[in-house]
Amino acid sequence: MSKGIAQLSQEMSAQLSDSDIPKGFRFAATHCGLKKAKLDLAILVSEFPASAAAVFTTNQVVAAPVVLSRAHLKRSRHQMRGLIVNSGNANCCTGSRGDTAAASTASKFAAALGDVSPSQLIVCSTGVIGAPLRVEKILAAIPGLIQSLRSDAASFAQLARAIMTTDTRPKWAGARYSAGGRQIRIIGCAKGSGMIMPNLATMLSFIATDASISPAMLDRALRAVVGPTFNSITVDGDSSTNDTAAVIANGQSGARKIASDNADFRKFCAALDSVCKSLALAIVADGEGAQRVIEVEVRGAPSARAADQVARTIANSPLVKTAFAGADPNWGRILAAAGRSGVRFNFKRVDISIAGLLVCRRGGETPFSERVAHQKMLASFVPVVVDLRAGSSTARIWTCDFTGEYVYINSSYRT
Amino acid sequence: MSKGIAQLSQEMSAQLSDSDIPKGFRFAATHCGLKKAKLDLAILVSEFPASAAAVFTTNQVVAAPVVLSRAHLKRSRHQMRGLIVNSGNANCCTGSRGDTAAASTASKFAAALGDVSPSQLIVCSTGVIGAPLRVEKILAAIPGLIQSLRSDAASFAQLARAIMTTDTRPKWAGARYSAGGRQIRIIGCAKGSGMIMPNLATMLSFIATDASISPAMLDRALRAVVGPTFNSITVDGDSSTNDTAAVIANGQSGARKIASDNADFRKFCAALDSVCKSLALAIVADGEGAQRVIEVEVRGAPSARAADQVARTIANSPLVKTAFAGADPNWGRILAAAGRSGVRFNFKRVDISIAGLLVCRRGGETPFSERVAHQKMLASFVPVVVDLRAGSSTARIWTCDFTGEYVYINSSYRT
Repeated sequence: MSKGIAQLSQEMSAQLSDSDIPKGFRFAATHCGLKKAKLDLAILVSEFPASAAAVFTTNQVVAAPVVLSRAHLKRSRHQMRGLIVNSGNANCCTGSRGDTAAASTASKFAAALGDVSPSQLIVCSTGVIGAPLRVEKILAAIPGLIQSLRSDAASFAQLARAIMTTDTRPKWAGARYSAGGRQIRIIGCAKGSGMIMPNLATMLSFIATDASISPAMLDRALRAVVGPTFNSITVDGDSSTNDTAAVIANGQSGARKIASDNADFRKFCAALDSVCKSLALAIVADGEGAQRVIEVEVRGAPSARAADQVARTIANSPLVKTAFAGADPNWGRILAAAGRSGVRFNFKRVDISIAGLLVCRRGGETPFSERVAHQKMLASFVPVVVDLRAGSSTARIWTCDFTGEYVYINSSYRT
Repeated sequence: MSKGIAQLSQEMSAQLSDSDIPKGFRFAATHCGLKKAKLDLAILVSEFPASAAAVFTTNQVVAAPVVLSRAHLKRSRHQMRGLIVNSGNANCCTGSRGDTAAASTASKFAAALGDVSPSQLIVCSTGVIGAPLRVEKILAAIPGLIQSLRSDAASFAQLARAIMTTDTRPKWAGARYSAGGRQIRIIGCAKGSGMIMPNLATMLSFIATDASISPAMLDRALRAVVGPTFNSITVDGDSSTNDTAAVIANGQSGARKIASDNADFRKFCAALDSVCKSLALAIVADGEGAQRVIEVEVRGAPSARAADQVARTIANSPLVKTAFAGADPNWGRILAAAGRSGVRFNFKRVDISIAGLLVCRRGGETPFSERVAHQKMLASFVPVVVDLRAGSSTARIWTCDFTGEYVYINSSYRT
């Protein structure tokens, strides 16, 4: 992490404090009735017009709110005022009634806020695909939600909780840094546990900052940061229909406005990267049924694209992921997955280390203690390094182990 | 199946009879000590020089016996005499000692047979990758194996059993047909349960026939047949380093020799197809932890390649496969998997049926009974039809459901 950035995350601080919240934002969450007795609807509002950037799923099957939010960002020239998100229903494959539901949510939300147009709002949904959204429950809850808007840490934590589906815990991360004598804060939350292999986005992630930055530079920052963070994680290789990562910057820190690629921009990018990386790792660590995070690092690849392809193939291999569930240093499965990735290399040159132990040298087994390897693999974070010795490019993908619990969760998700 | 072909398989006949065995073949199996107290070494011998064809894994990481067998087929111009196969160790990523082990196995086998050269023999291994092969156990067992060669059904059944790894049952299938007044028999066995997504081959499959056919036409028949059979199944999307499907035809039926694309050739292809299809389905049905076979049929695709790509993406989706484990008609996951396959289509035109019930019409839910769908999905064979309405091409892939048992098997495979 860059010097001068103070980072917060669940691991570093059990409690979010009010001073971590960027200026000029308010949050609220409620239970509107889409889920049973759990928070399922939340809003984020900037008190002032703010720059916004967002990336969305690349799945062709896209949910109604994704289509609507893309259009809103364009129509408002990336000058937004807030977002509304529900969990419990993805509003995807719901036909024209789904489109109407998303649009009426934005309209009702805008009208209740007063001085905001619907196109200044982002709408997100997450949950079951294909079931009709009972939008009347959302519409009925909006006035109460707006009444309960607050700018404190507790209300942000409620937002983080309201977007959960199979997540076992809320996920948030923050960062702060100084520029021109002003303190700038970034706070973000994310949800995601299954159907995770983002491609230009993650499940849902909402990031608020009081940095002052033009929409163009904010978009550039977000696109630069998602590659090595949200786009470098996988739980099961399935990418969702509703993926959205949005960042809203309202300038209320009073810091100089970032309008070009200068030192302030790089500071902002470093802080945004630290928040997105924390959130991405939190998603993998909370992957459905996961016991541990596995960092797959591929080195010595002929190109960055090839490195990424090998790393993703390993990170998505059910046989590799189940071996990690059993803390089994089965490097043969890692090498076999690399071998079917489509990237050309000579497997008789490959070295593999697991949890810091060299287990495969030049494509063959090298003596190591199975007992020590097993013990090290029981950790919550296990690095794997695969050196192809076929070039100088690298890639890093984070995944989790594949347990019986994943199957249990997903064999009865709807019922 | 074509008229005039009598097909045998486990489902149709509990017991193989001696009259199902093609003429001029002998088989033997033994426990040589690579596994604990189970058959782990077997041979198949043709009493006369025979045409042979084989397809192998497309994984770049290939086992020593695959490299050796490819070279032997070439050197002997596809005129072979038999094969030797061990389970319990894949002899893969075992360096130059692995190459020597495979070669010495062929040499010892050839010397013990007497009138055969090593290059007339195919060598196969299956089991753990990366562990050194204790070839001395194989070499020591060869003379005894040859002593016990027999041409009956019981010895073939032992071959089918000796190649098993995580398979829960031996897999075999047979067919017979007449041409020119002669009866021709085909018998095949296969192993495979995990690391199954064959690409130009399957795990291991050995097929013997007393048909008389030139090596060139035998190769053509095998390549035509593997596409819609062995290459159309997946258990976990991981393709193995040792995949081999070999067919040996010794002409001992006395039937006319097939040397061109004539009626006899088409009869032979139909019979070979029926055997390979039975074996492929048996592999999926015995997929690690599988409760049921899922037939994913994609229709209305813009091209055959696109249809195959969509079908494979659905068939390998962990979320789709876990939903089937729970007999959950979660068609949204099927559509979402199709959406990330890379094939362009308009998801608002897609129809999906599960177990004969239309569950998604024009990309949205259509009324159906969840209870009826659940009941139908508890069957051992569940067809899924996805009609993209984007062309006229089709594809069919067989997969199995993804259960906690798969994870249990694979989290402790080596230990």
